[in-house]
Amino acid sequence: MARSENEVTRRRFLRSIGQGIVAANLGGLPVGESAVPRLVVSDAPGKKLGWAIVALGSLSINQILPAFAKCEKSKMVAFVSGHPDKANRLAARYGVNPKNIYNYQNYDSIRDNPEVDIIYVVLPNGMHAEYTIRGLQAGKHVLCEKPMARTPAECQKMIDAARNADRKLMIAYRCRYEPYNREAIRIARSGELGKLKVILADNGFNIGDPSQWRLNKELAGGGCLMDIGIYALQAARYLSGEEPTELDAFSYSTPDDPRFKQVEETINFQLRFPSGVLANCTSSYGYAGQSHYRVVGSDGWLEMDPATVYDGLRMRVHRGNVFEERQLPVRDHFALEMDHMSECVIANKEPLTPGEEGLRDLRIMMAIYEAASTGRTEVLAQSKLTGHLPTLLSNASRRPS
Amino acid sequence: MARSENEVTRRRFLRSIGQGIVAANLGGLPVGESAVPRLVVSDAPGKKLGWAIVALGSLSINQILPAFAKCEKSKMVAFVSGHPDKANRLAARYGVNPKNIYNYQNYDSIRDNPEVDIIYVVLPNGMHAEYTIRGLQAGKHVLCEKPMARTPAECQKMIDAARNADRKLMIAYRCRYEPYNREAIRIARSGELGKLKVILADNGFNIGDPSQWRLNKELAGGGCLMDIGIYALQAARYLSGEEPTELDAFSYSTPDDPRFKQVEETINFQLRFPSGVLANCTSSYGYAGQSHYRVVGSDGWLEMDPATVYDGLRMRVHRGNVFEERQLPVRDHFALEMDHMSECVIANKEPLTPGEEGLRDLRIMMAIYEAASTGRTEVLAQSKLTGHLPTLLSNASRRPS
Amino acid sequence: MARSENEVTRRRFLRSIGQGIVAANLGGLPVGESAVPRLVVSDAPGKKLGWAIVALGSLSINQILPAFAKCEKSKMVAFVSGHPDKANRLAARYGVNPKNIYNYQNYDSIRDNPEVDIIYVVLPNGMHAEYTIRGLQAGKHVLCEKPMARTPAECQKMIDAARNADRKLMIAYRCRYEPYNREAIRIARSGELGKLKVILADNGFNIGDPSQWRLNKELAGGGCLMDIGIYALQAARYLSGEEPTELDAFSYSTPDDPRFKQVEETINFQLRFPSGVLANCTSSYGYAGQSHYRVVGSDGWLEMDPATVYDGLRMRVHRGNVFEERQLPVRDHFALEMDHMSECVIANKEPLTPGEEGLRDLRIMMAIYEAASTGRTEVLAQSKLTGHLPTLLSNASRRPS
Amino acid sequence: MARSENEVTRRRFLRSIGQGIVAANLGGLPVGESAVPRLVVSDAPGKKLGWAIVALGSLSINQILPAFAKCEKSKMVAFVSGHPDKANRLAARYGVNPKNIYNYQNYDSIRDNPEVDIIYVVLPNGMHAEYTIRGLQAGKHVLCEKPMARTPAECQKMIDAARNADRKLMIAYRCRYEPYNREAIRIARSGELGKLKVILADNGFNIGDPSQWRLNKELAGGGCLMDIGIYALQAARYLSGEEPTELDAFSYSTPDDPRFKQVEETINFQLRFPSGVLANCTSSYGYAGQSHYRVVGSDGWLEMDPATVYDGLRMRVHRGNVFEERQLPVRDHFALEMDHMSECVIANKEPLTPGEEGLRDLRIMMAIYEAASTGRTEVLAQSKLTGHLPTLLSNASRRPS
Repeated sequence: MARSENEVTRRRFLRSIGQGIVAANLGGLPVGESAVPRLVVSDAPGKKLGWAIVALGSLSINQILPAFAKCEKSKMVAFVSGHPDKANRLAARYGVNPKNIYNYQNYDSIRDNPEVDIIYVVLPNGMHAEYTIRGLQAGKHVLCEKPMARTPAECQKMIDAARNADRKLMIAYRCRYEPYNREAIRIARSGELGKLKVILADNGFNIGDPSQWRLNKELAGGGCLMDIGIYALQAARYLSGEEPTELDAFSYSTPDDPRFKQVEETINFQLRFPSGVLANCTSSYGYAGQSHYRVVGSDGWLEMDPATVYDGLRMRVHRGNVFEERQLPVRDHFALEMDHMSECVIANKEPLTPGEEGLRDLRIMMAIYEAASTGRTEVLAQSKLTGHLPTLLSNASRRPS
Repeated sequence: MARSENEVTRRRFLRSIGQGIVAANLGGLPVGESAVPRLVVSDAPGKKLGWAIVALGSLSINQILPAFAKCEKSKMVAFVSGHPDKANRLAARYGVNPKNIYNYQNYDSIRDNPEVDIIYVVLPNGMHAEYTIRGLQAGKHVLCEKPMARTPAECQKMIDAARNADRKLMIAYRCRYEPYNREAIRIARSGELGKLKVILADNGFNIGDPSQWRLNKELAGGGCLMDIGIYALQAARYLSGEEPTELDAFSYSTPDDPRFKQVEETINFQLRFPSGVLANCTSSYGYAGQSHYRVVGSDGWLEMDPATVYDGLRMRVHRGNVFEERQLPVRDHFALEMDHMSECVIANKEPLTPGEEGLRDLRIMMAIYEAASTGRTEVLAQSKLTGHLPTLLSNASRRPS
Repeated sequence: MARSENEVTRRRFLRSIGQGIVAANLGGLPVGESAVPRLVVSDAPGKKLGWAIVALGSLSINQILPAFAKCEKSKMVAFVSGHPDKANRLAARYGVNPKNIYNYQNYDSIRDNPEVDIIYVVLPNGMHAEYTIRGLQAGKHVLCEKPMARTPAECQKMIDAARNADRKLMIAYRCRYEPYNREAIRIARSGELGKLKVILADNGFNIGDPSQWRLNKELAGGGCLMDIGIYALQAARYLSGEEPTELDAFSYSTPDDPRFKQVEETINFQLRFPSGVLANCTSSYGYAGQSHYRVVGSDGWLEMDPATVYDGLRMRVHRGNVFEERQLPVRDHFALEMDHMSECVIANKEPLTPGEEGLRDLRIMMAIYEAASTGRTEVLAQSKLTGHLPTLLSNASRRPS
Repeated sequence: MARSENEVTRRRFLRSIGQGIVAANLGGLPVGESAVPRLVVSDAPGKKLGWAIVALGSLSINQILPAFAKCEKSKMVAFVSGHPDKANRLAARYGVNPKNIYNYQNYDSIRDNPEVDIIYVVLPNGMHAEYTIRGLQAGKHVLCEKPMARTPAECQKMIDAARNADRKLMIAYRCRYEPYNREAIRIARSGELGKLKVILADNGFNIGDPSQWRLNKELAGGGCLMDIGIYALQAARYLSGEEPTELDAFSYSTPDDPRFKQVEETINFQLRFPSGVLANCTSSYGYAGQSHYRVVGSDGWLEMDPATVYDGLRMRVHRGNVFEERQLPVRDHFALEMDHMSECVIANKEPLTPGEEGLRDLRIMMAIYEAASTGRTEVLAQSKLTGHLPTLLSNASRRPS
């Protein structure tokens, strides 16, 4: 029988940070800041909700489909795809019933399939609004990839559709559900670093094929900011726990680079938060891969590098003359995210990252584009960010992470 | 749609080290030294062999069962367990047909189940021989956890049983199938570090519950050496590509520690290899977790730290004034190992780590125990290690890793 | 005899990066980008110029005075201090002739001391201009600590005084003379990282005693930007090799913090360079110590962390899946800086960091303060930065680092 | 005025570990385990003893001579050299009076030079005994480089000569005086790592010129073990605080390598200590530079890598899921060592590493050579190690590090 070297370490980990651990099942409900989900795979079957995956691109194939083996409350029961051959091969591989394969034409008939509880929209950004709204109107709950849509107006329509259908709408902000970023949030807000002063966040990579949808304004809604810079923006917001009040930005696109005819290459932005925290962020489709942030307080700093990739995250905490690398258990980000959604449906709870959270990011990103084009500091009205909606405001006020 | 930041990196990785990449499917056949398996999950269903898992302890539950979702050529179809409730819950969770659940009494009737091609023996060491032999006699191929058994004699019986049944027997030396250790072997033998001089290898952890089977001589066969020191011994052998000719050893067990009444706490050993390479190894059930090796050549060294845990492996290479961390794609060790076994059955090939490889380690470990007890250097006859078996010798002579 | 493990490493280092090494003496003349100074202390006495140190604070006592033991072309022969007891004790310790101790009243009489060739002004910023000009008027060459002065106007007077006295004026930009930052410049401009896209630079610490001169506007000229942010600004300029054309900034000071009554606590700024490089910089007197930069190109990035402290600098270079730490020989930054000044005097050469370089930083820092107060992007006229002086322009055009 | 970013960090460091800090001057008297010497250079002149340096090779030129600028209690006043030109150039450079330059013929006349209090013997190993004894007989105190001599018999003669002359004799075990190794000792013995179990220590480099004295048996006394392995042996002894009772060893020299005609290339050895701690050590003149140790306890481990080079030492401490890098102030090892010797002379105290400590290492190294040649475990009599000398025993019993 093979050794279980990790077990020992894991048990010690649980002892050391486990004060807040409740009897969470895999998937991590409740996702309160103090709860780090259990580390071991339960042998309990429990109730599992049925999921349909909309679009079978590389993210679905490489990350989402295999993640279901690690889920406690979620099972994959249907595909929506424009490529029937691929869908059938994957159905055979994962034991999905071939009768549960839909295409974009008959997608709405999913309403008649009682096996499907939740739809995961993994389409290009420009199709998020349509397929989310059609899914909600089909009576299903929807998890939609980030960015939520191309514009605040699209976001608002999606939120309205969820309310009208009385269904849950969650945005797939994966990092909010995995242990490292959750622990970073806990540390940043715990006072361990002293009073927070500055947040640095950088995200980008050197994008390839000029013909891909990410470089098409209609399909992507924008460039690196929408796709990647959103991670830096999220980090600044969830680490500080605040909404920005002012920002400015510089952008640059290499002339004659065929990739950046429609969308920006690089965009840097600065944010001011009410408590005085300042954030400095960069994002680029033109630089070597970075996925990095550092939150600096009066007494120490915490660094994640890489911060937001699917695996291999690393955390360093610096105080005085000590630099600590803190290792957390390896977890599947997608399994945690999907089980959170399932749990919210089962328990009729609001997701940690509802549609309103996606709308907030879209509003700020629009202001960043404005600042980059005008050279003026943009002043953000809080009312604009939170949308004057009482339910949103109360949601914002209790926003735990 | 979520970003795919890893994809870019992964593609670059493939470009940079991909010279030796053939059209390997997931699971990594062929497991030649130069082939690093493909990184993406194929959407091809292909032929999958059926596996039965014998014993549903923590290794099975946390590692092996979820790993099947990443397999290309292996599917889980049966359980053998003494706990029917647990087996049924896990069967429900993973979609295993309840009629394919066996216990230790009716285990032999698995011969009548055509869905089962391969049996994975995950029992305590002292039960490896019996359940491997019964499995082989039931006409199934067997993958057996390490250490292969408690004694060379048990190993020989298992090898004989496989030959008599004309079935494959493979030992689950997981590290031989995952990318980091395979790349370490490639580098060590490539000359990149100059001529190899010294190998340092350390493995151990501070074991807990005194009543566990690992501390029971009858069930475990020995102490830390059998369970953990075997990783250090393997590393010395696979990094050098040689068999040791001399060794000496020191062992120590804390008096009155209730954990070490039957088996040793710590054992350190030195090995001499024919080329002049010397290895210095430690193993302990009493020290803080280490899983580490360093191979030092005339021109540089390579370090793995951790070296053999299930995830989070790290490789550093030092030459001159440069210390490189080289990152490889994250892969599931168990999926790779199991798919190698399936592939060997499909293609009727000898596994990279057959029963004879397990026997070699047992013979050396017996000599280590002897040296620790006598204070004399043990001289290892090559004939003893390879067993004078023509088939083994030829296997050893072509042993690529 | 003690081992010389370092020697081996150092020799290998010289072989590996030594293509550009000329027969440089300690102190590193010539300071061309490709020359990494020799690593060993010469046994040649050579000609040494005499130095007077103006002000015996902690920087002088802990760094500058001991550094002379590592100098090839510089010897310490005089002190200027307001504390005769301290000056006498230090003179006894370092073998400085007590008759060469001056105070701020009789400072000008240093003109009559032929042993003194060069004056090193280590006073608070607000006294730089006066003591530099008096030193130049006494016929001595002057090395002045950074920032050069409080305002561009003061800088201009210092430059004029040097021209009128026909003496050298150099600003103590220490990092331009030590191996790590010089190697970072070489790498950044070599194309090894691809085309440069973004520079991140952060410098600051949590300042203590509210009564210190650094927090006094009259003595310091400004807050963290002048003292610490100047390192980030320098890094952005010397890594890109360009002058910024646009900038914006946010600043913040904690209300009621007694330290920040006169000067700013934190200032973040963004720069745009002509080639399209964007820089994102932070500086603070209120956050935990950071001394860090990262230069990101299309193909890789280079990080220095810490980047600008006196010892223990570390460089990491990332490309593809490899993260390299590159170690360089440990050198005394102050010895290198002072020997460069001595060499420029001996050979009648312009220093790498003349007064005009200090003036450029002051002009940009004034624009950063302006942007922070107005919320508008500042457009920097190149003519303003370089001062319309033909000699400066030609200097800028050939500025190698 | 330049920033003082380090000051803040240094003060925090003092606060955090400063409990044991007495009013130590630079040089670190008293060298009790709990005292980490002050970090700043005092401005107090104090009494300085005069030192003569015997032999002006690379260690003297690159390390020892410049180190005097950092000494509080030691000044360089004389040279002994066979190269008068070199001695005169260095005398001019460092202000040594040319009349204080001796050669190996008139060395004994140093007895008539009242400026010289202490002699530092930096000759090849085979000359240590003669020049130490002549120095002691000339009435001077002697600091002798390691290894103390070629044989225990030579060591004993040196100890006897010191006793007869009533002068101090100290061996230059540099690492015992610098902050990192002293902190490692403190941590190892503090219980922070739990109960100590295993020590791993490795030291070596790939030696160059076959004609150098280190490869000459007559001048060096032995090969890598004497020169470099002694660091690993020291580490095992000072980290455990014990003397070994048993050992075994393997050695190897590449046939036909011209460097290893007289002395060994590689030697690995295992030690057993009375408390049950086991050490595994390697040493080589044939492998890429390593200077490394790890001390592993039941609850954590501490690693130094590099462990014993002149600068750039790094310490990592692992417990649970946290890996800490702990940074200490950069200090000059030679200045600390020399000031300790001066302090012992001034205060008439026994050095921390007297001649008897050197003798202990020689006795153990002889046993290592014996074990390597016989293949038998050597049993070390404690009486042999400590020499049955009451003064030594009492010294050993209070041996703090």
